Parts: sequence; structure tokens; C-alpha cells
Amino acid sequence: MTTPLSAATLDQVFRTARTPNDWVDETINDDTVHAIYDLLKWGPTSANSCPARFVWVRSAEGKARLAALAMDANRPKILAAPLTVIIGNDLAFADKMPQLFPARAEMMQQWFAMPGVTEATASRNGTLQGAYLIIAARTLGFDCGPMSGFDNAGVDKEFFAGTKIQSNFICSIGHGKPESVWPRNPRLSFDEAGRFA
Amino acid sequence: MTTPLSAATLDQVFRTARTPNDWVDETINDDTVHAIYDLLKWGPTSANSCPARFVWVRSAEGKARLAALAMDANRPKILAAPLTVIIGNDLAFADKMPQLFPARAEMMQQWFAMPGVTEATASRNGTLQGAYLIIAARTLGFDCGPMSGFDNAGVDKEFFAGTKIQSNFICSIGHGKPESVWPRNPRLSFDEAGRFA
Repeated sequence: MTTPLSAATLDQVFRTARTPNDWVDETINDDTVHAIYDLLKWGPTSANSCPARFVWVRSAEGKARLAALAMDANRPKILAAPLTVIIGNDLAFADKMPQLFPARAEMMQQWFAMPGVTEATASRNGTLQGAYLIIAARTLGFDCGPMSGFDNAGVDKEFFAGTKIQSNFICSIGHGKPESVWPRNPRLSFDEAGRFA
Repeated sequence: MTTPLSAATLDQVFRTARTPNDWVDETINDDTVHAIYDLLKWGPTSANSCPARFVWVRSAEGKARLAALAMDANRPKILAAPLTVIIGNDLAFADKMPQLFPARAEMMQQWFAMPGVTEATASRNGTLQGAYLIIAARTLGFDCGPMSGFDNAGVDKEFFAGTKIQSNFICSIGHGKPESVWPRNPRLSFDEAGRFA
């Protein structure tokens, strides 16, 4: 049985973590990117389907290609961040079920092939994995800047041509400049966001 | 600047956390449920839209109503778990922008009202918040059992009648019986799940 983590940990993962709008100039090396993936990959997905695919945009040329497809307000963030990840949902994810869930691969492939199930499963679970990416980066001491303001169809054509991968959202990772963080907006109260049953 | 969290923390949040299929009999009190919400609520969403809504199903009557709408394999899990949360996406989320993002409420409401944007924003960000729920519960020492095998339309009618909230997935929370955890399935390698650009 596990126990509650320290207050400092809860702060770093949730309570004091913020989204920066400008980034410290640095390089994020291969080992660090692999470490982020090697944490997020363990997060739970439906039948271990793991439908998210990741393009880790780190080169100057890659940043320029991605920034050109982003909303004006997001372009300088992408160019300044040491790394921006494109999180995509692979609609062909079920092809990997023999590897990912060998005991029930055929059964799950039949299930995922039902009308609407492929898309819903890819979208829901790919997005869960996108959230695991954010949390994994934070646990390793990084800040995250998730963004949905970009041309999804353009990104799909530029980065996922010839595949069934559809871009979901993008997320810059690095160390934010503290002065680039906006004042924090309020959240819904417990009662505004839900109820017991 | 934050630093990497301890190996034990990374284990608890990602590496050794597992999905149980049966649950220790216990009660999860109001304070604990509020503590989970008070962590997850800080996770980032697009323009602080916070579209997820939560029904915290804890009563015997609530569990029976939810279990009746679940796939056969999920019924006993819902009945055994001390708490199962229904995570829904509120398609009326933009109504709360004056509270959630007062400086840009009107601009964001116009944006979210564009064709397809309401649904995509509610789905993507509501699912991110569902992942934050899982991680928040784990950081507080709980196990999670997320499930998508249930009658979404039936749950919407039973728990979200008269609203624009659509059920997304459900997640049991408590302390799992260790013997109910299945052997862990493999994950995709870094190169199978992505690439640098």
C-alpha cells in the first residue's frame, strides 16, 4: 500500500506548477526525452492500447516547421522552447494489440473495430497519455506549456503524412521564465464541478 | 526551478502503479474526495476551461445504478470499489468562462462557439482532467481502476439528465487487492511510439 506523497511533491505536480509563456534557452538531451517517455508510457490506457504517438520537436528546422502551422500567439513560444512535443492519436493503434495485450489481442481488435470505437478509443486514451506526458515532465523538474492553437490538418500533413495518426495537442517542455507566467485564474469549487451519488 | 522527484515518487505515480480488479472494503470520506479534487483542479486546460464534471459515486444505491449500466466484467468492480467517479465533459463549459478566465471570457466564448470547437475542447480537456484525477489519487496513496466499458448514453440519462454533460469514462478509486492485479503488459518502445524532429 502506498501513502500520500509530500506537500512539496503535490506542489510540484499540481499546486504550484504553472504554464509559462517564455522559455529559458537550453538543450534537452536524448536521455532526458527518453526518461520522460519511460515514465509516461506506464500510465493506464484502455486494454493497454497506448494509441498516442509523439514527435519530439527539438531541431531549429523542426521548430520552424511547427511554428509556421501555429496560431500567431503560439509561434514565439514554440521557437523559444527547447522542446515541443506533438501528441497524436494513431487510428491504426489496434494493429499493435498482439504486442500490447497478447492474451486478448484478437478480442480487443474486434472490439476496437466496431463503428466509432476506434476514434473514441484513440482520442480518449491518446489524450490521457498526453496528460501523463505533462505530469511526467513535471515530476522530472520541467515546466510544460500545452497548446491547442494550431492547424491540426496542416500538422498532420507536415508530420504524419502516410499514417493514420491525427494530431491532438502540442506541449512545450523546458524551464519557463518565471516572469512569463500569467496570474493564476480561479478554478471551479468542488460543488460547481460535481456532486456525490 | 524544480528538481526531479525521488525514485519512490516516480514509482508510485507511474512505474509501479497498477490497475487492480478487486478492492479492499473501506470508506473514503468527504475530506479525501475533496483533497483529490483540490489537486486535480490545478492541472492545465485550454484557456482554463475546466470542462470536466465529476459524479463521485460512493453510496450503495449509486453504485448499483452505475453497475447496472456497465459491461458485465465491470459490474463487480464498481460494486466492490469504495468510490467510482464518473468523469463527464460539459458541453456548456463556456458559460463559466467569466468566472474561469475573466480577462478574456468574451473572446474565448466566441472561440469555443465555433463549429466543432465546443465538442473538441470539452472532450480533449475533460479527458486531460480525467488523467489528472488518476494521478492525483495516486499521489494521495490510492489505486485507480479506469474503465470505459459502460453504456454512455444510459449513464448520461441516469446521472446527467437535464444537462449538456456527456459521460467520458469512469474510474474506481481505493486500495486494490494485490492479488487482483494482472501481469503487466509491455509498452511500446520509444522508437515505436515516436521520433525526433
